[in-house]
Amino acid sequence: MRKIRVGILGATGYTASESIRLLLSHPNVEIAIATSRQEAGQPIAQVHPQFAGRLDLKVSQPEPGAIAAGCDVAFSCLPHGASAETVKAIVEAGCRVIDFSADFRLGTLDLYQQWYEPHHPWGEMLGKVPYGLPELFEKEIVGAPVVANPGCYPTSAILPLAPLIAAEAIFSEGIIVDSKSGVSGAGRTPKLGSLYCEANESIAAYGVGNHRHQPEIVDIVGRYTGCTLDCVFTPHLTPMDRGILSTIYVRSRGASVAEMMHVLRQQYQSAPFVHVVDHLPATKFVAGTNHVQITARQAGDWVILLAVIDNLVKGAAGAAIQNLNCMFGLDQRLGLGG
Amino acid sequence: MRKIRVGILGATGYTASESIRLLLSHPNVEIAIATSRQEAGQPIAQVHPQFAGRLDLKVSQPEPGAIAAGCDVAFSCLPHGASAETVKAIVEAGCRVIDFSADFRLGTLDLYQQWYEPHHPWGEMLGKVPYGLPELFEKEIVGAPVVANPGCYPTSAILPLAPLIAAEAIFSEGIIVDSKSGVSGAGRTPKLGSLYCEANESIAAYGVGNHRHQPEIVDIVGRYTGCTLDCVFTPHLTPMDRGILSTIYVRSRGASVAEMMHVLRQQYQSAPFVHVVDHLPATKFVAGTNHVQITARQAGDWVILLAVIDNLVKGAAGAAIQNLNCMFGLDQRLGLGG
Amino acid sequence: MRKIRVGILGATGYTASESIRLLLSHPNVEIAIATSRQEAGQPIAQVHPQFAGRLDLKVSQPEPGAIAAGCDVAFSCLPHGASAETVKAIVEAGCRVIDFSADFRLGTLDLYQQWYEPHHPWGEMLGKVPYGLPELFEKEIVGAPVVANPGCYPTSAILPLAPLIAAEAIFSEGIIVDSKSGVSGAGRTPKLGSLYCEANESIAAYGVGNHRHQPEIVDIVGRYTGCTLDCVFTPHLTPMDRGILSTIYVRSRGASVAEMMHVLRQQYQSAPFVHVVDHLPATKFVAGTNHVQITARQAGDWVILLAVIDNLVKGAAGAAIQNLNCMFGLDQRLGLGG
Amino acid sequence: MRKIRVGILGATGYTASESIRLLLSHPNVEIAIATSRQEAGQPIAQVHPQFAGRLDLKVSQPEPGAIAAGCDVAFSCLPHGASAETVKAIVEAGCRVIDFSADFRLGTLDLYQQWYEPHHPWGEMLGKVPYGLPELFEKEIVGAPVVANPGCYPTSAILPLAPLIAAEAIFSEGIIVDSKSGVSGAGRTPKLGSLYCEANESIAAYGVGNHRHQPEIVDIVGRYTGCTLDCVFTPHLTPMDRGILSTIYVRSRGASVAEMMHVLRQQYQSAPFVHVVDHLPATKFVAGTNHVQITARQAGDWVILLAVIDNLVKGAAGAAIQNLNCMFGLDQRLGLGG
Repeated sequence: MRKIRVGILGATGYTASESIRLLLSHPNVEIAIATSRQEAGQPIAQVHPQFAGRLDLKVSQPEPGAIAAGCDVAFSCLPHGASAETVKAIVEAGCRVIDFSADFRLGTLDLYQQWYEPHHPWGEMLGKVPYGLPELFEKEIVGAPVVANPGCYPTSAILPLAPLIAAEAIFSEGIIVDSKSGVSGAGRTPKLGSLYCEANESIAAYGVGNHRHQPEIVDIVGRYTGCTLDCVFTPHLTPMDRGILSTIYVRSRGASVAEMMHVLRQQYQSAPFVHVVDHLPATKFVAGTNHVQITARQAGDWVILLAVIDNLVKGAAGAAIQNLNCMFGLDQRLGLGG
Repeated sequence: MRKIRVGILGATGYTASESIRLLLSHPNVEIAIATSRQEAGQPIAQVHPQFAGRLDLKVSQPEPGAIAAGCDVAFSCLPHGASAETVKAIVEAGCRVIDFSADFRLGTLDLYQQWYEPHHPWGEMLGKVPYGLPELFEKEIVGAPVVANPGCYPTSAILPLAPLIAAEAIFSEGIIVDSKSGVSGAGRTPKLGSLYCEANESIAAYGVGNHRHQPEIVDIVGRYTGCTLDCVFTPHLTPMDRGILSTIYVRSRGASVAEMMHVLRQQYQSAPFVHVVDHLPATKFVAGTNHVQITARQAGDWVILLAVIDNLVKGAAGAAIQNLNCMFGLDQRLGLGG
Repeated sequence: MRKIRVGILGATGYTASESIRLLLSHPNVEIAIATSRQEAGQPIAQVHPQFAGRLDLKVSQPEPGAIAAGCDVAFSCLPHGASAETVKAIVEAGCRVIDFSADFRLGTLDLYQQWYEPHHPWGEMLGKVPYGLPELFEKEIVGAPVVANPGCYPTSAILPLAPLIAAEAIFSEGIIVDSKSGVSGAGRTPKLGSLYCEANESIAAYGVGNHRHQPEIVDIVGRYTGCTLDCVFTPHLTPMDRGILSTIYVRSRGASVAEMMHVLRQQYQSAPFVHVVDHLPATKFVAGTNHVQITARQAGDWVILLAVIDNLVKGAAGAAIQNLNCMFGLDQRLGLGG
Repeated sequence: MRKIRVGILGATGYTASESIRLLLSHPNVEIAIATSRQEAGQPIAQVHPQFAGRLDLKVSQPEPGAIAAGCDVAFSCLPHGASAETVKAIVEAGCRVIDFSADFRLGTLDLYQQWYEPHHPWGEMLGKVPYGLPELFEKEIVGAPVVANPGCYPTSAILPLAPLIAAEAIFSEGIIVDSKSGVSGAGRTPKLGSLYCEANESIAAYGVGNHRHQPEIVDIVGRYTGCTLDCVFTPHLTPMDRGILSTIYVRSRGASVAEMMHVLRQQYQSAPFVHVVDHLPATKFVAGTNHVQITARQAGDWVILLAVIDNLVKGAAGAAIQNLNCMFGLDQRLGLGG
């Protein structure tokens, strides 16, 4: 079988290098192109020295025509706004795309404009692009020309919340999502807050009350369940490379914790990467993998849902490969370890 | 002026070494005695190599008579249960004590028995020992023979909550305290979960729904305000040596965030270590110090209070020295930096 | 093709869990047995929660007969001494073994007794068991019943040194190997020095002048080159989970740095995991992988060789799988990523 | 007594904030001025949020006249080149200066030009400015208008080497200084290599064979001993905020390790911050302090000297305060803990 040719657009950041790392052990894929305006002409191992001797590829300028000609699918690791523009050109040239940016995640242009930019380069696609969580939207993903790769925080919140809301086990109001993320979520662009000596040995909240992943959680849970979530989302920068833990406070509509665990186990019984566990999940248990661990606990009147993912894998590159596998009819697990 | 002679009981752990570190720069104090059953006979610099050439003292067996004879005040860093027994003997022999354990924090024997042990060696003192937060209980601390040094998590929750409850700015029900602590809070006894390779690069909740600091928060806020708090408390182990961030979700009774900030500023205007700030606090901003940073933010229908302390300083050794300063009529800031 | 059945002996530690992690994505292998005296009867996911939902296996008591019957090859992650005894029983029962301990690495019983124990359970094998570095000893490994998996530090020192000594490019005297290792090298048994708050934010040397990996380096370089190395080895505990950097100071016998790089490139041109690079290697570039990066630099009269590996992968579990692949006629890269 | 007024020039970086942290608890000092071109007009707590409520000072433009008028001594935390120019203006206006840059450390203009810049704004001072290690050069420091605050790496190498060279205990040739530093040594300017996700969980050498601290070590040991050192210096970036460990390989001229320890103990018997210890020093033992721990060990034909400092304290801000104390006739320990 001919290998699926993947292009990596915006190849300098962490989600790009993580995609390359995983794709290198995918048996049905070859990395055909890696693009970056600022690093074009450099060997990829110059940009990411971990690939020295492992991937012999020169970074090229992003040319939609060349990308569409040379790839079966492109991973767009470009920032929002820029991504939609490139995605449009590539898709129109006949190449499928998995978009890591937020450009196609939300269901309406209004919502996009409220939280992102006044102009969307391909706004008519909002509402038509599937949200790349195969655990919830596999059917839509299979045949799609563009898949919106989920945000990292939303992945950790939607997977535990959506089935419990759908099953009417918990109320959709008064939900608190208190999330803790590793520093790689802040990207590879040098800035003060991402410096080792600023982030190390410290934890702090940021984006309190106004983070863009809050409307994404609400929108996607709504898309899956039909319910309008009322939730507060507080992200925290945690001194570790990778990992997200979401501690989610919900109120039961009568279901016991055991019944909630049962709902979750039923939902994910055939999902290869989602594990409903009895122990308290730690981000380390899923670090470097596409796996998710979820549990639920009683605490006074509240039920606490705890979910962990690796923000760079299930929260980005791994989800993209899982989506690629769905889009090309492969076993979801290919290239994603055991 | 003769120096105040301090004894350190249970000198092997982190709260003990942090006490020594701070006391070494206290101008009015000398460390007279350090005790430990298992390390008796060793130079202190054998137990804590950071003190080589800085403190010439041999660890001794804990003898209440010798402690009372040689010290004006003892810091008991012993575990609960064992601590109360030793504290009783020392106090009866005429020495004052600052107790780092939980033995004298709670207001009733019932509560102690419910959360700690069936037997309390000096149960009649519960309700009579002041809680060592000079910001709230200075008057009681001044003349007390025993002061209960506060728990680390409770310090970070009580300081922002108590004044706002007292001012009727927020509801006392439905409060969520989501706390993140460095690993030193788990102590210096070797155990699997405290190993570097278990705790590093990972965050996880523990004690969900049943941590002993929850009743302490409720009891002390109640003691100060007369209100019965209804709150959930979730601690998380965070990959850093020290620091606690508490992210506290409360509901306003009508007060704006600005009004809450005003209440807090009024309350702590003459407290040298509590700072009500406009920025989002990070634990690093207070690491190694006795300072506290608190702020409040709106997030949907909720108000989020954020407070940071160093669990080993304001959450343990620094609070003890602040209490010592109150008990001996000194400026609260002595030995605690600028 | 029937899968190769692997047994993991001593399944509780980090080299065991890393072996499981890698074997789970090896297409030709199944994990048949995992043993541990202390954890027998527990599901493996109880011991290593990262495998929840990923490996359904109960830890069993180590019974040589059962192991030999159920496995084609065993990974012995037992401590030295205990390992040799078990290896002997298993091999005699017809199962091949890759031994992670130091029991079969050294070439003579004398040397073993000098550095390890007075008694060796199977001392007559010393000198007959191949050293499991396929880059240097592939032929001996292929048909061997027992392979001695290399020590982590020695791997990082032997790979750069052996070819340069063999080529007479450098002197074999006056060599300094200054190595820095992550904390996982200290194992998973709780002890003071491995605690997060002891190892974090700190670097220190240990075993100065008397570490057991020094004679291993000398012995194996000698076995490969016929030369007797005179070298000092200083290991350092570095605050990170995994990784070894060896900074090796050597004197040229006339060869330039460029010529040394050429020797190394020639030696490893067909070795899939060893990369001779122009940049300065960082342990992060090989973290989680079986890869090695090596370079050489001039510094005054000295030449500095720098080599990085992941101590748990190329320094333990990955090397074992590479050896397994050699022993069973498979591509060395199988199960070890791209 | 009137307090000594200190100015902090270049107040945005880590050595500046560390100076402020320490000066806040110095009983005889007040921080009068803090300057920064880019942050002028901001409260200092905006630049360094750890000082909120602790230091009420606005950052100002650097005006030599205003600095000289308002300060008794200035800490110049400016980069080399820029520093010398400012230092000249301030000293000529009558203010004393402790210069954190390398501008006045080396003994000759030639050496400066070889390793730094072709032009030196005040080159005639080279050779006249004392090197700010009071342990070796106290007499010269006392009355000096300008003191060159030592480099962090050189401090860790000179303190163990100089007395042993002077005592002819070790050879001055063939010395290897293998140093490991925390990330704060790289400064607070955002750049790729200082990002958390680049530096964390990784160790790497840098500046191999060409780091500017090598000639500083040689020059200062030469100034103290009259010997020309032949040494190689290799710095490594280590994943921790602060701390330097130097592992120094030397050859004995006949002295035993015990005799070397005796030489060091004699040299530093009245130095309050240098401790010759029997244990293996870890950077954590001196973190946050101005202390130094040194030991010596035999390893084959070599002797290994091990020294640890905190690069931001004894390697920068603490040394500056120690120099300030010398310059103003105070106890060296003031403001530097116990």
